[in-house]
Amino acid sequence: MKQRGPWTRHGGEQILSTGHFEVRRDEVTSPDGARGRYDWVEMPDQVRIAAVVDGCLLVIEQYHYLVGRLWQLPGGAVDPGDTNAQAAARRELAEETGYRDGTWTSHGHLFPLPGTTPTRVHLWHAEHLAPGPAALEPGEADLRVHHVPLAEAARATQDGRIRCAPSASLVLTVVSAPRS
Amino acid sequence: MKQRGPWTRHGGEQILSTGHFEVRRDEVTSPDGARGRYDWVEMPDQVRIAAVVDGCLLVIEQYHYLVGRLWQLPGGAVDPGDTNAQAAARRELAEETGYRDGTWTSHGHLFPLPGTTPTRVHLWHAEHLAPGPAALEPGEADLRVHHVPLAEAARATQDGRIRCAPSASLVLTVVSAPRS
Repeated sequence: MKQRGPWTRHGGEQILSTGHFEVRRDEVTSPDGARGRYDWVEMPDQVRIAAVVDGCLLVIEQYHYLVGRLWQLPGGAVDPGDTNAQAAARRELAEETGYRDGTWTSHGHLFPLPGTTPTRVHLWHAEHLAPGPAALEPGEADLRVHHVPLAEAARATQDGRIRCAPSASLVLTVVSAPRS
Repeated sequence: MKQRGPWTRHGGEQILSTGHFEVRRDEVTSPDGARGRYDWVEMPDQVRIAAVVDGCLLVIEQYHYLVGRLWQLPGGAVDPGDTNAQAAARRELAEETGYRDGTWTSHGHLFPLPGTTPTRVHLWHAEHLAPGPAALEPGEADLRVHHVPLAEAARATQDGRIRCAPSASLVLTVVSAPRS
């Protein structure tokens, strides 16, 4: 038994494992004293980067299988080989855009779906980057990188171009409190 | 077979059903021509509301089983009985805070985890609301409603109090472009 705030966890098991996420079923007592199950999704943390180059944000345009064409900030999952979230962010930015090195500032993390998964999206602001060759994975052949002025990126969070929730939040954070 | 941008969907099946979400497995050909599986999570859409009362945003503080104590905007899942997303938003706001009626403006929708689930979070801005009695569910006994000035709510997206990604994005949207 383990207490989690007003919840009690009595135990749990993995009920499904896919290549990308797992589903777990916990036996719990909820805050009102009711005993039941809490099914949830376990998956690697993710990273998103607000990378500023010549006053523009680097924005990725790609067709997503589940939701269609989408603009989002560069990023992806933290891999087992990444020593920490910043290492994952530097790797993803270099792979997707070629940009590397520079000055990095953390903007903490967000929970995209806190009732369903504890996965976190770690947010970074990167400046003074050096260009280099990208290294896309085979499945990312349709990925395009746009250089979007900050004010247009903010508008893109309102007009339906940037619909990725962590990306939208990070864009608005960077635009409302610009650094350097 | 169904084309989805550069992807082809050959078919699919449900491989798990829980009370809150389902897992589906699709047979696909990805943009690089590789045949494989795409496992994804299906769940109801959600709503979040930026409800402004006397210059303050209504913010919910609650302990979440998976991630601990969290501030987020009022909201929740679209239920089968809701005729549309706005009806769900009006119902959730009244249940959690008691506030109802008023003037509602859509801020579109965001995808919290577009690589894993197509679920959308529909965002609303509500003003000129009328107070009334809340109607919490039994499991929401520890829910508290804060009246947070707009500028403090924006700071709360940066200092780790508001870590719900759709909530953070909507707070920053409303604060950067206030209405009325």
